Amino acid sequence: MVMPNTLLEQSLNKRVSLLLKDGRILEGKLVGVDDYMNMVLEDTEETTQDKIRRLGKVILRGNNVVSIAIK
Amino acid sequence: MVMPNTLLEQSLNKRVSLLLKDGRILEGKLVGVDDYMNMVLEDTEETTQDKIRRLGKVILRGNNVVSIAIK
Amino acid sequence: MVMPNTLLEQSLNKRVSLLLKDGRILEGKLVGVDDYMNMVLEDTEETTQDKIRRLGKVILRGNNVVSIAIK
Amino acid sequence: MVMPNTLLEQSLNKRVSLLLKDGRILEGKLVGVDDYMNMVLEDTEETTQDKIRRLGKVILRGNNVVSIAIK
Amino acid sequence: MVMPNTLLEQSLNKRVSLLLKDGRILEGKLVGVDDYMNMVLEDTEETTQDKIRRLGKVILRGNNVVSIAIK
Amino acid sequence: MVMPNTLLEQSLNKRVSLLLKDGRILEGKLVGVDDYMNMVLEDTEETTQDKIRRLGKVILRGNNVVSIAIK
Amino acid sequence: MVMPNTLLEQSLNKRVSLLLKDGRILEGKLVGVDDYMNMVLEDTEETTQDKIRRLGKVILRGNNVVSIAIK
Repeated sequence: MVMPNTLLEQSLNKRVSLLLKDGRILEGKLVGVDDYMNMVLEDTEETTQDKIRRLGKVILRGNNVVSIAIK
Repeated sequence: MVMPNTLLEQSLNKRVSLLLKDGRILEGKLVGVDDYMNMVLEDTEETTQDKIRRLGKVILRGNNVVSIAIK
Repeated sequence: MVMPNTLLEQSLNKRVSLLLKDGRILEGKLVGVDDYMNMVLEDTEETTQDKIRRLGKVILRGNNVVSIAIK
Repeated sequence: MVMPNTLLEQSLNKRVSLLLKDGRILEGKLVGVDDYMNMVLEDTEETTQDKIRRLGKVILRGNNVVSIAIK
Repeated sequence: MVMPNTLLEQSLNKRVSLLLKDGRILEGKLVGVDDYMNMVLEDTEETTQDKIRRLGKVILRGNNVVSIAIK
Repeated sequence: MVMPNTLLEQSLNKRVSLLLKDGRILEGKLVGVDDYMNMVLEDTEETTQDKIRRLGKVILRGNNVVSIAIK
Repeated sequence: MVMPNTLLEQSLNKRVSLLLKDGRILEGKLVGVDDYMNMVLEDTEETTQDKIRRLGKVILRGNNVVSIAIK
């Protein structure tokens, strides 16, 4: 049994790919997470339908996150 | 009487198919679940209208899940 | 006076038709329900605009359910 | 002063017309209600843009209800 | 300083115009309100894009209300 | 450091411009606010895509407000 | 490990770029933040699909914020 929160903390300093509720995909190095699944990413890239934007260091609100793929 | 949470815990290590609020379907092996129905899937495949993407290990936020079909 | 929760528990082992927030209709035998109106259905069929899919045993999140028709 | 909950309980066994968040209109005899405004209707008819469906006995989740017109 | 709840209670027996989240406008005499801003209107008229419907006595869920204009 | 609630209370009797979740813009004199950021505006004007409507005194539910610009 | 809230407080007096749920982007100097991630921005510019608007001093509700990029 792998608790979701435990896996997320074990993923610190790994690259993750986040799918947001509005369909955006953010990929970056996970450097922080709290109990609400708010996260801090570094070297973040945002992919929308046809564009990639480099966002650098980003704080993400957990309640907009659909899923987190561990790289 | 089968409590939803009990059935979900009994489904650990089985393949499940999740329907998300945005219409995506994720299929994978259920390896973790918590009280909020956040889940961890392995060997995950995402199906949208016309594409399949392999996502590997994925953490899912329970509040985006509509239904969980047990394989 | 018929309390909604009481009627739902009395409907165990009957077929129910659930309307979900996204317009899907799920029909199946109700075999479990909890205090959040999360439910377990067996022999579930999903009807969308023009398709029927057989889903077997399904766990449903109560907060995606609009209405429950008792057969 | 008419408290909303009091009026709803006084409306038991009357016909009511419910407007749901997705625009559907459900009309039926109100036979049950709880503190969350979950309701039980009998002889329910659902009206969408161009169709009427007879649904019989229906449980409704209060958080999908926009307004309740008393007949 | 005018507290929103105080103004609402002072508006009892006045006509109010409610804007709902789905864009509908309901106008009627405010005859009841509770702590969740659930309201009871009498002589209610609903205006959508091109139609007016007379609804009589209506219970409104506060969490669907965007704004309340006092006549 | 300027706390959001403090700034809002300091803005009493000033004109503010509210952006709502549905894209409407309301402009008026802020005469009341509570802990949920419910607000009371006077001399309110609503701007949608191509129309201006004069609304007079308006109560606004805080959870529909996206942002508040201080004039 | 960088907690999201800690990073946000360290970003006071820096320029940040906020992505909102409705797709708007707000950029400004962060001068205040509370526990709900409500924020105060100064010298704020709003970018929608094809327009830039200068908004000056703005209060933002945290629950409409998707992500915060630190400049």
